[in-house]
Amino acid sequence: MKVTVTTPNKTYDILIDELADITLDTKVGIITNPTVSGLHIKKLLSKLNAKETHIVTLPDGEEYKNFESINFGLDRLFDAKFDRNSVLIAFGGGVIGDMTGFMASIFLRGIKFIQIPTTLLSMVDSSVGGKTGINNKYGKNLIGAFYQPEVVYIDPSFLDTLPKREFSAGMAEVIKMAVMFNKEFFEGIKNNSLSIAEIIKKSVETKADVVSQDEKEKGIRSVLNYGHTFGHVIENLTNYSTYLHGEAVAIGMVMANRLAVKLGYLSENEEKEIKEVLKNNDLPVYYKIENVEDFYEHFFADKKTLNNSIKFIIPNGIGNYKIVKDIDKDVIIDVLKEFS
Amino acid sequence: MKVTVTTPNKTYDILIDELADITLDTKVGIITNPTVSGLHIKKLLSKLNAKETHIVTLPDGEEYKNFESINFGLDRLFDAKFDRNSVLIAFGGGVIGDMTGFMASIFLRGIKFIQIPTTLLSMVDSSVGGKTGINNKYGKNLIGAFYQPEVVYIDPSFLDTLPKREFSAGMAEVIKMAVMFNKEFFEGIKNNSLSIAEIIKKSVETKADVVSQDEKEKGIRSVLNYGHTFGHVIENLTNYSTYLHGEAVAIGMVMANRLAVKLGYLSENEEKEIKEVLKNNDLPVYYKIENVEDFYEHFFADKKTLNNSIKFIIPNGIGNYKIVKDIDKDVIIDVLKEFS
Repeated sequence: MKVTVTTPNKTYDILIDELADITLDTKVGIITNPTVSGLHIKKLLSKLNAKETHIVTLPDGEEYKNFESINFGLDRLFDAKFDRNSVLIAFGGGVIGDMTGFMASIFLRGIKFIQIPTTLLSMVDSSVGGKTGINNKYGKNLIGAFYQPEVVYIDPSFLDTLPKREFSAGMAEVIKMAVMFNKEFFEGIKNNSLSIAEIIKKSVETKADVVSQDEKEKGIRSVLNYGHTFGHVIENLTNYSTYLHGEAVAIGMVMANRLAVKLGYLSENEEKEIKEVLKNNDLPVYYKIENVEDFYEHFFADKKTLNNSIKFIIPNGIGNYKIVKDIDKDVIIDVLKEFS
Repeated sequence: MKVTVTTPNKTYDILIDELADITLDTKVGIITNPTVSGLHIKKLLSKLNAKETHIVTLPDGEEYKNFESINFGLDRLFDAKFDRNSVLIAFGGGVIGDMTGFMASIFLRGIKFIQIPTTLLSMVDSSVGGKTGINNKYGKNLIGAFYQPEVVYIDPSFLDTLPKREFSAGMAEVIKMAVMFNKEFFEGIKNNSLSIAEIIKKSVETKADVVSQDEKEKGIRSVLNYGHTFGHVIENLTNYSTYLHGEAVAIGMVMANRLAVKLGYLSENEEKEIKEVLKNNDLPVYYKIENVEDFYEHFFADKKTLNNSIKFIIPNGIGNYKIVKDIDKDVIIDVLKEFS
């Protein structure tokens, strides 16, 4: 199965299939982590034909998605005398994908890179759209670049070794896209009538369609932040240690749905339906807010908050989105109180 | 005077004139160094109307063009709660321009920036073309991005305070462009018949024309490396401490001209003519090579050296260029010996 992504600067394919043979007449750097390398590097190496193959293993985990890892990785490329024709392969989850893309974007002012995501989240979300970057002490993904891969290979069999909890976290982003854009897709997830390859394809198609319209997130792409405005605050308040990103997003969707119901865009029935699908996918749907005012203030620390006005993305029925701005603080506080 | 630069992703103007009023309804970060700030910040502030104005002063000098300075600068922007609408102004020479552009390219995955170059080199060279970046222990400009400014303001009156030696170093790049692309321009420089504003305009036009054709240096843009292949080795062997970049390029042009004469592309008369113009602009035209073999080996450490074949840019008469590849090592060694 193939999905083509079109952005103003580049068109590339996402291939969903058993990993194909990859032949590159250049130096290739595989950027990965110990977990993925341990489980799957043999398979990748058996498929890869390159002039030289270098493996750069970065520490595993969101807490290492920082400048130190980037510098370590770049230094290894310089050590191996990589040049402008060299190619990087991101082999791992979203953290590896984001860091590899960023490294590729700034190494000698930009070299090519290929994505081979190994988690559901990175397959359906971070491998589409060209967002690359790292975290710093001020927050997540605050430093980075928009930089598109040459091609993305998605082999669903890598998911066989993915921990169940991480699989569910990936499903949160899948459900997010279905609720925002495609009621039929949502029904398919609800009824368990789709194969994982089909789920990936539909998610990727949906995201590719959004990104094609709005690479730099000036408009419709912000709809993908459904669940994220609340979710980021939850991640922040729990020091990114309690919930996986997708889990925080799941709770964030439940919160956003509450707002949607209050504003009259979603029925209580639909709200319940979405919550059930999240629960059926082993996702959390509740977070106890200790301090409602403090939670509210945290919205303004997010980089997506321009000019101190918060934008909420909510469902407008299932399969449609609504962007709402300038909501009265009281309304938001009322929503938050229901979780306190 | 106005020059318009067209690249695949962006079109922007270079305005050569007394600094205009700049009105921006956003937070603005002026990135500068103590020298430029001391001499000229009052003038810039008198012209600038912004929602908030923040001044970030980075240490002065090529040795500070590194990740530490970038991180320091970015942290100050986060401290001041800059968002995606905020704008940076590069106020200084090439080092400030390269770092500001790089910071703008990676802050929140890219914000707008404006260039106000204050040295001749940055006016004619680094402010056109979108090359941004920093140095690391492996070499110069190895990390960075192609990222274009919104607009470039060139006010030649900033040159009144520029040290004579730095002015001459800027003239090296001017002469380079004239020799490569425009005989009439070269004659104008030779005869001192052009004002500094005219010199800047012609240089900027020439470079803009080249960059418009080839933003990412896959073809004709490499012609701008005339003098640089030799010059970079000289800078490297002298630890970037003996010569200013333009001075090393001047010597590099003399060496490249020697090669051009040997290969039959330049007459000895033309060679002499170019050397005279360099000397009249107080530029060095000789560097004593201690070890010819070692000098030769250094060509291969340069990032522009793909697949171990060196490309030399030489004049094909004055006003025309020639790119020569796969030159016998003996021929190059013979040229180098004349400087040993």
